[in-house]
Amino acid sequence: MSRSARRKPEYHKINRDLFVLTYGALVAQLCKDYEKDEDVNKYLDKMGYGIGTRLVEDFLARSCVGRCHSYSEITDIIAQVAFKMYLGITPSVSCNNSSRNEFSLILDKNPLVEFVEELPAGRSSLCYCNLLCGIIRGALEMVHLAADVTFLQDRLKGDSVTEIGITFLKKLDEKKYRRKK
Amino acid sequence: MSRSARRKPEYHKINRDLFVLTYGALVAQLCKDYEKDEDVNKYLDKMGYGIGTRLVEDFLARSCVGRCHSYSEITDIIAQVAFKMYLGITPSVSCNNSSRNEFSLILDKNPLVEFVEELPAGRSSLCYCNLLCGIIRGALEMVHLAADVTFLQDRLKGDSVTEIGITFLKKLDEKKYRRKK
Repeated sequence: MSRSARRKPEYHKINRDLFVLTYGALVAQLCKDYEKDEDVNKYLDKMGYGIGTRLVEDFLARSCVGRCHSYSEITDIIAQVAFKMYLGITPSVSCNNSSRNEFSLILDKNPLVEFVEELPAGRSSLCYCNLLCGIIRGALEMVHLAADVTFLQDRLKGDSVTEIGITFLKKLDEKKYRRKK
Repeated sequence: MSRSARRKPEYHKINRDLFVLTYGALVAQLCKDYEKDEDVNKYLDKMGYGIGTRLVEDFLARSCVGRCHSYSEITDIIAQVAFKMYLGITPSVSCNNSSRNEFSLILDKNPLVEFVEELPAGRSSLCYCNLLCGIIRGALEMVHLAADVTFLQDRLKGDSVTEIGITFLKKLDEKKYRRKK
């Protein structure tokens, strides 16, 4: 891990249920607004992107992570520091290809769906938590990392786990992202 | 205070900024959907009501508050236990009439508007945080307390403080709400 020992132990916290229910209200509103699941997914991703671009500064300040020198390290930071800090969970990480630019975050627990038993009727293609993909994409873009971020598996769709895929799109400029000495 | 010593010190927490930005996205979406501020306010209240009816059970379980025997006590619980638990702030409480059924919660700080400098252009009647009024109203209704809950002052509208007014609508059945011995 490339985070420094200066990491602040405390951040502003609120109750998770309030967030989870408010998020549910947001998804319900978008389902009311857009007939097609694809449009809801797109819009959640877009909203998340905007949130990610704003959260990242705060994240870097609070987490005190140093610069990373591999996509693997970056993905570890997302899973072990960012998810822990913002959602209180730590997904496991796997690398999916030999080029080491495709990764999966495996979520055993997903607090965002705590009150959701199943997808709404007629909404079988809804990526309920797509806001998360947008947030990751937006935050990465703010540190000059282009990535595709999508749900590969979703327990709400009957999969055995929830899996977010991150594909980094450019060759990492190792000099640029070299860890600070 | 009528809360018992059994109150659990820990609840599930998440980062506040994530909630605040997601809430902002929800309000922005409603402003896109509804032309009139009054309709946005009404819808936020309605969404909040639904959230309040679901949160209250969790609140009662986690907070271990006992039954109250006055509106004043109930308002204190809202300010000192519920606001603290869900938003991490403790509004001050004042009673506004001699019948002791009208109260104000005065919020010095309002985390929900942390990223909001001013109301959007042309949205001067928007009650940006109206979800909170709905949540309080919904939660109270689930414990058989009818109340009007509205913003009386709002810093986003140039007032010096943010003030939520709670008017309890029925004579309190003292026997029913008497504190458990």
